[in-house]
Amino acid sequence: MEVVPVTAELQESSATTTSERVPVAELLRRRRPGTSLESAFYTDEDVHALDLDVVFSRQWIFAAAAAEIPEAGDYLTVDVGSSSVVVVRDDDEQVRAFHNVCRHRGSRLLEDRGFVGNIVCPYHRWTYDLEGSLLHAEAQPPGFDKTCFSLRPVHVRDLAGLVFICLADEAPEDFDAVAELVEPHLRPYRLGEAKVAAQHDLAEQGNWKLVMENNRECYHCDGHPELITAYFPLFAYDEEDISPRLRPLYERYQRAAADLEVVRRAQGVPMVDHRQLADRVVGFQLTHMPLDGEGRSFGAHGASLSRRLLGDVQDPVFGDLSIHLQPNSWFHVLGDHAVVFSVMPTSVSTSVLRTTWLVHPDAEEGVDYDLATLRAVWDATNEQDRALVAATQKGVADPAYVPGPYSMVEDDVEAFVSWYVTRLREHLGPDAVPPTVPDARSGD
Amino acid sequence: MEVVPVTAELQESSATTTSERVPVAELLRRRRPGTSLESAFYTDEDVHALDLDVVFSRQWIFAAAAAEIPEAGDYLTVDVGSSSVVVVRDDDEQVRAFHNVCRHRGSRLLEDRGFVGNIVCPYHRWTYDLEGSLLHAEAQPPGFDKTCFSLRPVHVRDLAGLVFICLADEAPEDFDAVAELVEPHLRPYRLGEAKVAAQHDLAEQGNWKLVMENNRECYHCDGHPELITAYFPLFAYDEEDISPRLRPLYERYQRAAADLEVVRRAQGVPMVDHRQLADRVVGFQLTHMPLDGEGRSFGAHGASLSRRLLGDVQDPVFGDLSIHLQPNSWFHVLGDHAVVFSVMPTSVSTSVLRTTWLVHPDAEEGVDYDLATLRAVWDATNEQDRALVAATQKGVADPAYVPGPYSMVEDDVEAFVSWYVTRLREHLGPDAVPPTVPDARSGD
Amino acid sequence: MEVVPVTAELQESSATTTSERVPVAELLRRRRPGTSLESAFYTDEDVHALDLDVVFSRQWIFAAAAAEIPEAGDYLTVDVGSSSVVVVRDDDEQVRAFHNVCRHRGSRLLEDRGFVGNIVCPYHRWTYDLEGSLLHAEAQPPGFDKTCFSLRPVHVRDLAGLVFICLADEAPEDFDAVAELVEPHLRPYRLGEAKVAAQHDLAEQGNWKLVMENNRECYHCDGHPELITAYFPLFAYDEEDISPRLRPLYERYQRAAADLEVVRRAQGVPMVDHRQLADRVVGFQLTHMPLDGEGRSFGAHGASLSRRLLGDVQDPVFGDLSIHLQPNSWFHVLGDHAVVFSVMPTSVSTSVLRTTWLVHPDAEEGVDYDLATLRAVWDATNEQDRALVAATQKGVADPAYVPGPYSMVEDDVEAFVSWYVTRLREHLGPDAVPPTVPDARSGD
Ligand code: FES
Ligand code: FES
Ligand code: FES
Repeated sequence: MEVVPVTAELQESSATTTSERVPVAELLRRRRPGTSLESAFYTDEDVHALDLDVVFSRQWIFAAAAAEIPEAGDYLTVDVGSSSVVVVRDDDEQVRAFHNVCRHRGSRLLEDRGFVGNIVCPYHRWTYDLEGSLLHAEAQPPGFDKTCFSLRPVHVRDLAGLVFICLADEAPEDFDAVAELVEPHLRPYRLGEAKVAAQHDLAEQGNWKLVMENNRECYHCDGHPELITAYFPLFAYDEEDISPRLRPLYERYQRAAADLEVVRRAQGVPMVDHRQLADRVVGFQLTHMPLDGEGRSFGAHGASLSRRLLGDVQDPVFGDLSIHLQPNSWFHVLGDHAVVFSVMPTSVSTSVLRTTWLVHPDAEEGVDYDLATLRAVWDATNEQDRALVAATQKGVADPAYVPGPYSMVEDDVEAFVSWYVTRLREHLGPDAVPPTVPDARSGD
Repeated sequence: MEVVPVTAELQESSATTTSERVPVAELLRRRRPGTSLESAFYTDEDVHALDLDVVFSRQWIFAAAAAEIPEAGDYLTVDVGSSSVVVVRDDDEQVRAFHNVCRHRGSRLLEDRGFVGNIVCPYHRWTYDLEGSLLHAEAQPPGFDKTCFSLRPVHVRDLAGLVFICLADEAPEDFDAVAELVEPHLRPYRLGEAKVAAQHDLAEQGNWKLVMENNRECYHCDGHPELITAYFPLFAYDEEDISPRLRPLYERYQRAAADLEVVRRAQGVPMVDHRQLADRVVGFQLTHMPLDGEGRSFGAHGASLSRRLLGDVQDPVFGDLSIHLQPNSWFHVLGDHAVVFSVMPTSVSTSVLRTTWLVHPDAEEGVDYDLATLRAVWDATNEQDRALVAATQKGVADPAYVPGPYSMVEDDVEAFVSWYVTRLREHLGPDAVPPTVPDARSGD
Repeated sequence: MEVVPVTAELQESSATTTSERVPVAELLRRRRPGTSLESAFYTDEDVHALDLDVVFSRQWIFAAAAAEIPEAGDYLTVDVGSSSVVVVRDDDEQVRAFHNVCRHRGSRLLEDRGFVGNIVCPYHRWTYDLEGSLLHAEAQPPGFDKTCFSLRPVHVRDLAGLVFICLADEAPEDFDAVAELVEPHLRPYRLGEAKVAAQHDLAEQGNWKLVMENNRECYHCDGHPELITAYFPLFAYDEEDISPRLRPLYERYQRAAADLEVVRRAQGVPMVDHRQLADRVVGFQLTHMPLDGEGRSFGAHGASLSRRLLGDVQDPVFGDLSIHLQPNSWFHVLGDHAVVFSVMPTSVSTSVLRTTWLVHPDAEEGVDYDLATLRAVWDATNEQDRALVAATQKGVADPAYVPGPYSMVEDDVEAFVSWYVTRLREHLGPDAVPPTVPDARSGD
């Protein structure tokens, strides 16, 4: 990692008072790579409207695990800003997505999740099939043409058991290329056939980007005592920083990585990593990490959390396949379970973190896994992060806040921010936002 | 009813995203008769400010039943946006209305409802009589002229026991002509002398217009099992739609209507209907409807709900006198009781539905009527409608919502919307809003 | 007090409807001395942003009693709009103040109050000493210069045990001159060494200025039965207004005042009053008032509330040293205890009133004072005022509200408003706000 001296210059940087509002284009133009974003990105209603529009209504976003709607007729709804999307498995077992809005006078059609034969509006009983076609509407004049009133479709993809949607008319094409890179890694876990062991929605008192930034670094991982017993405690170091004192630990880590590679190769599963977080539209990162201690799962010191291994996995020491996707999701896929995370904005200063635990479809609660134990590490970690995000939302909303410098272990935060800033710049166009100098720090 | 083919054209119609705001004048100009309003009418703060100004601060609105303040000194307060109005019966038993604001430093004078001799400000004890004159203010300089600090009056009318107010400096003159048409129908019930058996305020999670639109059609009445047992199940039909299967039902209905006419004529009470919902300033509709089953009241299958008949009514089978008034009220007046409804906006996306049940002044609870039974049908119906309104508020706030076509039995919804759009157009003026083509569907 | 006839002219004055927004400069220009402020000053978000900026972020505001942080390392936090300030006693026992914002990614550093050795950010453990210097930050590149990342300081003064802060870069210099006038009056009470017996935060449903205006007059004191038993009931009178009936009361008051002067002189303590509420930047008033009845404290009829007298006070009949400071505080300092009040805005229509009771450091609860009795009079009075402020916030937000005339005993309300309007005018500049005619009524 190349470094640039961070000097007093930052201190003079643009503190904005609550009374003066800076146009978003100007905020984007003056964004300094290697430092946190200005206050307005976390507090301004105009920025938030732009986030909902440019990010959440135009990019591919993670919606649900396919395992949440296993049977034909199963549906769930996803709120994206003031949009609601019905994700439903149709009679051919295909996953489909529609805007959750009746074509008559606009009533919401379905709530939460459940099972339906057809989609019947609760207001005046207009009835749609699972492909969105209007089957029936009472008391219509003779000229009424039902084919004009189908439900409005939403783009949807099932990537090896992970369902993504895109609300845009034209969805970014980049998704399919990324899916092709990711799919072979996920295939052996057969997540689409998994069982949902638990799901939890955590109300965050912070802008969605603060929740994402929190996820994208382990600089704060000392605050996660439950989580870090499963990992090699090297997350604050680059290889060149390994001191003689850390050498034995580092060598242990290298051995575990080598062992993991052997195991995965034996199953014919790729172990190459990918890191394209900022430089493509569907920014992503895919990492295979050995675990410490027993090396099996997120239990204390790497202990196993479910007796049944996922899909085709045969060795319990199968590492942590960690996938990060821009803008709103990340995944930990282990030999015995997977944990699926997504962040949805609910206002400029609040969001919801959804966590879903997946296990083998035949794993029995109380027999193969203890639910509280399965959830414990991420319940604790999420709650610790919730407090940090809330404290940061308050701080960045303070007129005294000035963006500060990222440390040497916050590259992925920079990559997230850079991906985000790029999306907004593209949207506003080169005339609105002249480019700034590239970040000298980013290896991305 | 004339019909116009509804085609794919609608589908292309103006979906607005949250980020672009369309001026109200443009929204009014492009409003298409025969279809529901665009999203902004239910979600935009500018539209809401205009609604409060043009509709609720300039039109005659229903405030209360006169029976709520039977004695001199009785008062109640009515909130209209951020305005509060005191409606009080003065020492001459006249109903008067004042702005509920002290002329000193502005404190609210009275809360809720009660009884007063004079109106004394809770802050510094400025004291006003029931005609609004300032009687007393302490520690004033010699030149202080009390006559300059009377309470600011509000226009008020008592229409046969129904109290209407108008916050405008100049109230629409049309009210008196409508009152003259309506009064003879209401007179025999003597509502001004009735007893308030119950009153309920229901918090609606929807714009006030969605609550009104819900009231103005029975296209959704299959969702009201308690209510429809008292009505002839013909609400989704025009006469020409009556199929052979429905013929016996229709003939039963016609006989009941004819019988009702005989009874009402015997009491010298008019039975002509009126429908001027969209084409006058005080838009209204007045309908005499026979009830099904026992034909007496809103009990199951038309059963009676109070033993004492209202006012001068002599026959328990006296039909349902149903009155709809723009913008915010409707009334069901039956032989044995009346139910009075009004809608008040509390924000762009919330409102309050007030329901008041009136019975004969001597009707005794537990003896002549059972309170829970009296209320049951409208408590249930209001709650069913509350859920539909809430689902529709969410749906029309969705960027994917596009206005849809009214069915053949939603004429009164069109009339309400048309009345509303006309008021806003008049306010903004012909230069701001060029007229659109008239609605080919409306018989209004 | 000179008087000006108040005529019908006021009645015509500028009622603004919710739909039209008047620029603040215009509101300031047309403000009429001798009358309450227009609605927008209590309801408009732009005015509120200006209040936070011009008043709360540029003036000296009362933050806390020094007795709340008696030891080195004791800290408390103060919220001012979206700002948070840490007030901490450093290792040299000096009171210091910093913005409560980490220089890394902006997290809040400390919550509420407590004790710390260093200030450690909860997020990534950046560590600052009590003088605000960054001591430690992990994983920084070689060029990282810690001296560039000190906590941002806030101006702070300890005036005889009362801590004031100023968030401006340049704090108004006037403070020191006022402190010099006030300090000799406070010195004998040694408030810095006092004990905090109680503190209460009361949520007010009103703009902060309504809470201040309520404090600045006793025209409403008939509504405070508990409070007024300790005072001579003369608060609604000027000397020339004393009627023959009031003469004996007035003479009793004069004797008590003379006695108080003797006692205070014997202790070498000044008894001169000051009134510079509107005509200096740090507007203040300082009054020595004898109490009625026993003359000792705020107990019923002047009864004592704590057996231990504050600081060097030797006579229990030591009067009420009442200090009013613009914009947000007032103080009652009595022989046996002091009560400290401050108002902080929390939104345009809400604020918090903080009340702190101080007693002698050795006074023991249950022995020297009964806590409930000590608090009773101000708990009751604050609650009575809370209801009045809430009723007034609703009233001034009503479109029917028009500013009304101050009575002859509301001079200090006029002085508060005048001070406030002057600050806003100075900020916007003479070009934006041409001056209006001076107030003929103000003796200020
Ligand atoms: S709104 Fe769906 S059927 Fe009417
Ligand atoms: S506000 Fe009503 S008397 Fe003062
Ligand atoms: S935000 Fe304080 S150390 Fe990172």
